[in-house]
Amino acid sequence: MTDATLAAAPTDFPVVGVVGGGQLARMMQQPAVALGVRLRLLADSPSDSAAQVIPDTVIGDHRDLDTLRRFARGCAVITFDHEHVPTDHLHALAADGVPVRPGPQALVFAQDKGLMRERLAQMQAPLPLWRRVSSTADVGSFAQLAPFPLVLKATRGGYDGKGVWVVNNEHEAAEVLSHDQVPGFIAEELVAYTRELSAMVARSPSGQAVAYPIVETVQRDGICHEVYAPAPGLEDAHAVAAQEAALRIAGELDVVGVMAVELFDTPDGVLVNELAMRPHNSGHWGIDGAVTSQFENHLRAVLDLPLGDPSASAPLTVMVNLLGGDLSELYPAYLHCMARDPALKFHMYGKVVKPGRKVGHVTATGTGPNELSDLLERTRHAVAYLRGDIDE
Amino acid sequence: MTDATLAAAPTDFPVVGVVGGGQLARMMQQPAVALGVRLRLLADSPSDSAAQVIPDTVIGDHRDLDTLRRFARGCAVITFDHEHVPTDHLHALAADGVPVRPGPQALVFAQDKGLMRERLAQMQAPLPLWRRVSSTADVGSFAQLAPFPLVLKATRGGYDGKGVWVVNNEHEAAEVLSHDQVPGFIAEELVAYTRELSAMVARSPSGQAVAYPIVETVQRDGICHEVYAPAPGLEDAHAVAAQEAALRIAGELDVVGVMAVELFDTPDGVLVNELAMRPHNSGHWGIDGAVTSQFENHLRAVLDLPLGDPSASAPLTVMVNLLGGDLSELYPAYLHCMARDPALKFHMYGKVVKPGRKVGHVTATGTGPNELSDLLERTRHAVAYLRGDIDE
Repeated sequence: MTDATLAAAPTDFPVVGVVGGGQLARMMQQPAVALGVRLRLLADSPSDSAAQVIPDTVIGDHRDLDTLRRFARGCAVITFDHEHVPTDHLHALAADGVPVRPGPQALVFAQDKGLMRERLAQMQAPLPLWRRVSSTADVGSFAQLAPFPLVLKATRGGYDGKGVWVVNNEHEAAEVLSHDQVPGFIAEELVAYTRELSAMVARSPSGQAVAYPIVETVQRDGICHEVYAPAPGLEDAHAVAAQEAALRIAGELDVVGVMAVELFDTPDGVLVNELAMRPHNSGHWGIDGAVTSQFENHLRAVLDLPLGDPSASAPLTVMVNLLGGDLSELYPAYLHCMARDPALKFHMYGKVVKPGRKVGHVTATGTGPNELSDLLERTRHAVAYLRGDIDE
Repeated sequence: MTDATLAAAPTDFPVVGVVGGGQLARMMQQPAVALGVRLRLLADSPSDSAAQVIPDTVIGDHRDLDTLRRFARGCAVITFDHEHVPTDHLHALAADGVPVRPGPQALVFAQDKGLMRERLAQMQAPLPLWRRVSSTADVGSFAQLAPFPLVLKATRGGYDGKGVWVVNNEHEAAEVLSHDQVPGFIAEELVAYTRELSAMVARSPSGQAVAYPIVETVQRDGICHEVYAPAPGLEDAHAVAAQEAALRIAGELDVVGVMAVELFDTPDGVLVNELAMRPHNSGHWGIDGAVTSQFENHLRAVLDLPLGDPSASAPLTVMVNLLGGDLSELYPAYLHCMARDPALKFHMYGKVVKPGRKVGHVTATGTGPNELSDLLERTRHAVAYLRGDIDE
């Protein structure tokens, strides 16, 4: 605050500590305002996306245990905008008696792709062919099973396509494996999927869980570009199977909060690609298109409140990400975009535009699946205009 | 912020200065977060409802011109959570070159019921019988036209039933008129209305305007208790006439932002009761039930952005106010209320519970007018539980 120190909370509503100042934390503030829940943010900088909208912001390093401990004081629970807090620190906080949700024993499976694959394999969840690899020889041997081109992934630290490489031969594999900052690798078959889906669930410490409608995601270079909710043309049985798989994974891993299970859809069924144990880009559509957004259900879940209805409130919702383009100033583009289409919902993250950076998203809702092309034209037009790709 | 001074805005998005720290300013923060617009708040205290959720909060007195001037520095526009800023100060800010929206020349008609009645009479808007009164004799003379019981209203300073008195005779009128802090009075007929309606519009400085669906409001002791949107059973022609009247008033008074026109519905048509030139309790339903909430359209309007679609996104929405009851702690009641009804939307204002004080509201949406009784049962149950009127 500019003129005043922060007042003591005038009410008994709990404080939720959120580690990480990105747009996911920012979008938690909207349901927090509605629920009366107070957020405390640990951000890298006061100009972080979420720090701009959350008064009780602490600036500090989420890799420093003392900082985390000071931050946690007075919080009813600690949760996350990202998965980069060291697992040991989370165990230390939990040992201090601070509820950490999702807990480190669950979060590790979103932090470490090797552990995730092993655990899901134990559960007999449907997976691509995969193997831990540490040498070119390992990759060569795996290629007997899953021929080149195949995928190498860093077990830790990847996001939005970072830490994932498609390699065409052992030579390329050797180059990737030489990245000495990477603690470990897995190799995976390059799945010939028909499309990508995402199954979002929310689960509370008491074990209550809800599943959102299965959505279709359109990714490019590992970055989410578009989401269609619910996934057009997906058979009911197929959708229910994907929801059940996500609920089973959440239960077995003891996830608390929301979890997105990114799936490959193939003629033979779905395969699990990635897990995210936090609000996820594939769930942003629900701010405008679901009875309870992923952000509200994440807060409800980590507070062990009963979960909200995850149903779609509109028969079809399309979300298109705004990735930084040529325009460095987004605001002037509102004049054109809002005048052209009064029903679009704009979500801006308060971030400086850099090429390819996620700086916002645009959503439109429709009355049925036959409106998909209309909703796509409208949302894509707005995003193209905001990027500076078109000027009319 | 706790550990850091407020950072410079990293983007070109404008700052909207909001005078007043109540729940209306608080609920502007949700669309501000989405739009990327930055709010700066002038609040009485850091524990004010909106100050809890807006980082850039200045604590100061809205009746002090120097405070207002300091607050306005760097704001693209100044707008309001309440109508209590002295008109002269608004003119002074406007003379300084600060856009004040709505402007003082419009806002005065929401601040002064006498001026409002005169101006609306000039426009031939449908009004109850009324007259300025300053003595018991004036009231007695008016009673020849509109017999007792009749209504006395303070021309300035009233809200939520304050500053409004129903008097049964000249003796009671004399007692009201003896309130020496009241600058002026009007007398009005006590309208035998069938129900109360509200017409909400938004208007931009460029003159673009949109009308929300006409809603039914249920008031007790001058305080809004419930809102049904759209007003059940209201004939289309009747609704359109009310929307047109509100749009005409907004245009003629040069309103910028949202305006609620409170109406009496009578067998002979609607009569204008009150005007509010700010987000209004009768528009809260739209957070969950309209494509664009009144709070978002207020921000768009004062920034002279194209207005958003005011259409209902659900065929029926019911909003029930939570007025403080026996329970001083609201949060524990969430367990019961959310478990009973996962589709309810809760909106809490972060205010200390006092009897009769507006501390939140609860909304439910339905698929058609036949669900009115169901939505009422569900929202009223939650509110009764949150008040402590019932415990199961």
